[in-house]
Amino acid sequence: MGFGERLKEAVERTGTCACVGLDPHLDKFPEELKASWHGLEGTAFRNAAAAAVQRFNREVLTRIAGKVPAVKPQLAFYEELGAAGWAALEETCRLARDLGILVVADAKRGDIQSTAQAYAQAILSDDGPLAADAMTVSPWLGGDTIEPYLPLVQRQGKGLFVLVRTTNPGSALLQHHGQPRAANVAAREVHRLGLPSAEASGLSAVGAVVGAQTSPDEVRALREEMPHAWFLVPGYGAQGGRRDDCFRGRRTDGLGVLVAASRSVLFPPAEGDPWAAVERAVASFARDVAL
Amino acid sequence: MGFGERLKEAVERTGTCACVGLDPHLDKFPEELKASWHGLEGTAFRNAAAAAVQRFNREVLTRIAGKVPAVKPQLAFYEELGAAGWAALEETCRLARDLGILVVADAKRGDIQSTAQAYAQAILSDDGPLAADAMTVSPWLGGDTIEPYLPLVQRQGKGLFVLVRTTNPGSALLQHHGQPRAANVAAREVHRLGLPSAEASGLSAVGAVVGAQTSPDEVRALREEMPHAWFLVPGYGAQGGRRDDCFRGRRTDGLGVLVAASRSVLFPPAEGDPWAAVERAVASFARDVAL
Repeated sequence: MGFGERLKEAVERTGTCACVGLDPHLDKFPEELKASWHGLEGTAFRNAAAAAVQRFNREVLTRIAGKVPAVKPQLAFYEELGAAGWAALEETCRLARDLGILVVADAKRGDIQSTAQAYAQAILSDDGPLAADAMTVSPWLGGDTIEPYLPLVQRQGKGLFVLVRTTNPGSALLQHHGQPRAANVAAREVHRLGLPSAEASGLSAVGAVVGAQTSPDEVRALREEMPHAWFLVPGYGAQGGRRDDCFRGRRTDGLGVLVAASRSVLFPPAEGDPWAAVERAVASFARDVAL
Repeated sequence: MGFGERLKEAVERTGTCACVGLDPHLDKFPEELKASWHGLEGTAFRNAAAAAVQRFNREVLTRIAGKVPAVKPQLAFYEELGAAGWAALEETCRLARDLGILVVADAKRGDIQSTAQAYAQAILSDDGPLAADAMTVSPWLGGDTIEPYLPLVQRQGKGLFVLVRTTNPGSALLQHHGQPRAANVAAREVHRLGLPSAEASGLSAVGAVVGAQTSPDEVRALREEMPHAWFLVPGYGAQGGRRDDCFRGRRTDGLGVLVAASRSVLFPPAEGDPWAAVERAVASFARDVAL
């Protein structure tokens, strides 16, 4: 089964378009975990913090299994803990897989052919260390730097989300450059690369990142250019996006959008048990973006 | 001392613009190292291969110390070995630092603010796991996603190379899009971001990746737009670039270009001692792109 269909199955099974971002901001961790690295520095700090990250993710994943289709670990937050952070990330991906939650590795990689092959092996391949179900990639170096991932799309049912349109303050500089805008050029490339995988279900394995603050007109144009693509929509919650903003890119069948939230659901303002608070915040998020 | 000046000092001290890419292609390793992971799979394979990578890099680094200003590990080749690969990368960066060789981490990261901060900590910061001297970043998400690295540029003498113009087959799709071309828009952003660090020596800490196959006219225009920037030029050797192609972006003072070669110097056709062959290949490369 291709990734487009696997994600459809997961969204329909859980009844929600919610994707929980696993961005372990250490400074927002529950106090009981913070104590574990108190006073440590260097490698000792990173080892202790990585163990805390692993524990944090285990607590979160076991509580949200069956309730959301996917999680999205942001690789930067693991890499800042070095080798120990990567080990925690490997363990997190393994646990999510065991719990039946799809893993979208937020890596935003973009590099030439032989390097892209190495990233595909690092992040997606079933015999690699992470074996994620999908990953984010950058289009800046062109379609030939995305093609090296396609064998895993075809043979292992893996997926991609190409950075088409983000909505951070400086995003327009290059993404809105030219006529048509560069983001639209990237969108057409996403469509071209994803077409072979869209045949069976009409949902392709090559999706697009489209930020929640993208204007309604622009989202409409991007949807027309990428009729088969899943949109991964960051920006819900802490970044200000509301349900209606995030859902603008949905297709007429109600599918095609996966909404990501991280800080607002991982670190809700809480009194009492922090894990129960995460569980409530995720449940509320999942209801808000129900299918 | 800022990175622009640190790189100038290293280039002048070694008398060459050569940067050795540390891309450990396992299938090209000497037979004595390949034997170490023979028959292994999964984590056992990755652990054994990472140990071989560490050994390989140690052999290379100790032979080239003092002869080239910088090395450029490509992160993908370490990440495909998971946590063990990251440990080998940490060890490689530490050894290069001890040997007085600058480390340019070829990471090509590009992400929004809090994530960029985490990548800065992961890759550049002196109290992080790699503590590289410089790294490559993507401009696709805009200047505000490069700004989070600037505190380390200012406070720790770190450097950046922004992906302005690559010369892989599909690179023109976005980089040549629009009028002016998007690559030139990115170049102006590099200039803007680097200007504060260019004050002392006239060489900025924010450089640009400009592929060896970029046309002479385009290189000239990019140099005009980025008069203070170091150009990191990939594509020498195995990728077909020759000395004259790589040197097109040099400033009138002869500085401003760092030429990267990886496969052609790490894995030269060799009979006899593979390490002596690497040493000869690096020496020949260093002479070819002598200052």
